Amino acid sequence: MADPATSPPLNRASVQAARELIAPYVHHTPTLTNRTLTELGSTARTREEVLARGEGQWAKIDHPASPKLRLWFKCENLQRVGAFKARGAFHALGRLLEEEGALSLAARTHNVPAYIVMPEISTPSKVAATKGYGAKVIFSGSTSVEREAAAAKVIEETGARLVPPYDHPDIVLGQGTLGLELQEDAARMMAEQGQGQDQDQEGAGRKKVGLDAILAPCGGGGMLSGVALSCEGTGIRVFGCEPWYQGADDAKRGYESGARVEAVSTLTVADGLRTPLGKVPWHVIYERRLVSGFYSVSEREIRDALRLVLERLKMVIEPSAAVPLAVALYNEDFRGMVEREAGEAGWDVGVVFSGGNVSLEALGKLFANAEEGK
Amino acid sequence: MADPATSPPLNRASVQAARELIAPYVHHTPTLTNRTLTELGSTARTREEVLARGEGQWAKIDHPASPKLRLWFKCENLQRVGAFKARGAFHALGRLLEEEGALSLAARTHNVPAYIVMPEISTPSKVAATKGYGAKVIFSGSTSVEREAAAAKVIEETGARLVPPYDHPDIVLGQGTLGLELQEDAARMMAEQGQGQDQDQEGAGRKKVGLDAILAPCGGGGMLSGVALSCEGTGIRVFGCEPWYQGADDAKRGYESGARVEAVSTLTVADGLRTPLGKVPWHVIYERRLVSGFYSVSEREIRDALRLVLERLKMVIEPSAAVPLAVALYNEDFRGMVEREAGEAGWDVGVVFSGGNVSLEALGKLFANAEEGK
Repeated sequence: MADPATSPPLNRASVQAARELIAPYVHHTPTLTNRTLTELGSTARTREEVLARGEGQWAKIDHPASPKLRLWFKCENLQRVGAFKARGAFHALGRLLEEEGALSLAARTHNVPAYIVMPEISTPSKVAATKGYGAKVIFSGSTSVEREAAAAKVIEETGARLVPPYDHPDIVLGQGTLGLELQEDAARMMAEQGQGQDQDQEGAGRKKVGLDAILAPCGGGGMLSGVALSCEGTGIRVFGCEPWYQGADDAKRGYESGARVEAVSTLTVADGLRTPLGKVPWHVIYERRLVSGFYSVSEREIRDALRLVLERLKMVIEPSAAVPLAVALYNEDFRGMVEREAGEAGWDVGVVFSGGNVSLEALGKLFANAEEGK
Repeated sequence: MADPATSPPLNRASVQAARELIAPYVHHTPTLTNRTLTELGSTARTREEVLARGEGQWAKIDHPASPKLRLWFKCENLQRVGAFKARGAFHALGRLLEEEGALSLAARTHNVPAYIVMPEISTPSKVAATKGYGAKVIFSGSTSVEREAAAAKVIEETGARLVPPYDHPDIVLGQGTLGLELQEDAARMMAEQGQGQDQDQEGAGRKKVGLDAILAPCGGGGMLSGVALSCEGTGIRVFGCEPWYQGADDAKRGYESGARVEAVSTLTVADGLRTPLGKVPWHVIYERRLVSGFYSVSEREIRDALRLVLERLKMVIEPSAAVPLAVALYNEDFRGMVEREAGEAGWDVGVVFSGGNVSLEALGKLFANAEEGK
């Protein structure tokens, strides 16, 4: 890994530079709209629906929120390797090669061996996929101490360089590139709709052309903080989305208390979001206040949002990727905030589908167990 | 329904005119590529794989075919109502309104009541979706005689006009519009790849810019014949794809024997392809020879292709929509033909994902039962 001290500054221009660097290696993924989901988001739920889900946590259950939401889905499930992570990885490697110079580049672009340290509790499909791409998988415990020890051992034995999954400026900048694409594509599509073509969203009479907000999932926070950097100075607000099962809402708790939560132990179905927030992401998200707030959802809400995406949008996403849509559709705090802030004009909200790495077997189990309702 | 005698001629220009007519009402769906599936299609299977699947039907099992296939997926699962059928329906209605004139148009664009005649064996999710869109569902037996009797009764009682699902020139022309989009988008993407951007397909050194062939599923044949018309005069060859379980390969049998098969009774998992070929499609497909041939696949091959689309392409499609990919990956007759005809240059093949209307429950059952292996 390139020394963090030599990384570009954490700002929007660096995200733009990262985009240039990784362009030959990653997909520009599509941004989609869907009339059914946009209508669902803009329909107030009944008091009964809110009560059934809210478990007493909402302040104003008598008046379910009635926001106007136009949703724009950023499909990183269609990214190479099935998730946004290709962006950060290619950026970190690209920066490493820049630092090491042209000679080592030539050697490294041919068959760089990769060792991936994964927690033993990783889902079998992710382990299989990782091996399928040719990497050697090293298992470790789930805590950061155990992970770092396993990585240190590999480095000692092989002389490998470390590429951490999220807690590094190069990773953050690389992941943030999806935010630039989402902003540009949504703005272009809005402009085209203004010309009367493909009127899938209520575009009539609006002057502004661009997103108002982006909802992104938050695990280690590398992608969320990168997206926040990609929105710096644009006026687009960025919100983090988490499960709350077994304390998985660590970023929200840290953000609201002012102290980063350093350890989490949760088995939420959103298995990509079981990690605590990293230090670099925390700096961007909290200290620089580039994220405007956090919202969390239940396991049932994640499953319901996932079902809608599979059955109505016809896209396969993993449970973690359904968390932002669950916030948009079911979190009354978020919905009430949009109703107050956006009023009649409503908000255009980007929703990040972070990845699609889930097996048919895992999907089957998820919905077979759904009736038990944890 | 507009009188077939007043329909535009069945040719490419009429498909282009249909496209203009329906443009405000349907999506221009995306065309996607996928490196993994393209590599899989271009890799010869082992003799064991061919034997395990082929059940003795292939001539040259000693030398599994080694075609070069570059696959282009036309995503009609992302079409409105989740399938290509929106195209034919909007075209047929548009033509009907043109014929009836402006007065009745004004009346009809507000709340035209719709009665849909469906076989009793239709999958519950399709019945539910149809009702969900506001239509009144009338059940009938599975034969064309029973269906037509049920439709005649509705017409007598309500004065409704008939819109048949596939056996009408207006429907055929409407469905064919997806072929125009696929041709244009693939050609544009090939041209962009030639400039070194997003090299997902092997583009180096090729001169030609455009598809060589299109594989489309064939049930009643409305879409297949429309796609064939959209390719008329372009040099692009069109092939029909069917299941063979319980005689579902009626179009193939009819095409090869020279007599349309008028009745089929099959419970193939590709439930959209249980219908026999209609008369108008037969005219285009067989009498005018605008379809170059048919290929069929087993239930297992359909399931395996479906799994690849769900897990690797991250798209939800229904079993019927997986049939053309199954042909590309597993049908040795098709693969051998491409190897001979295309040689080293290979073929760019459009693969029509016709729809995505399948419930999570149905998907779960499909793969839970897969081990039993019918």
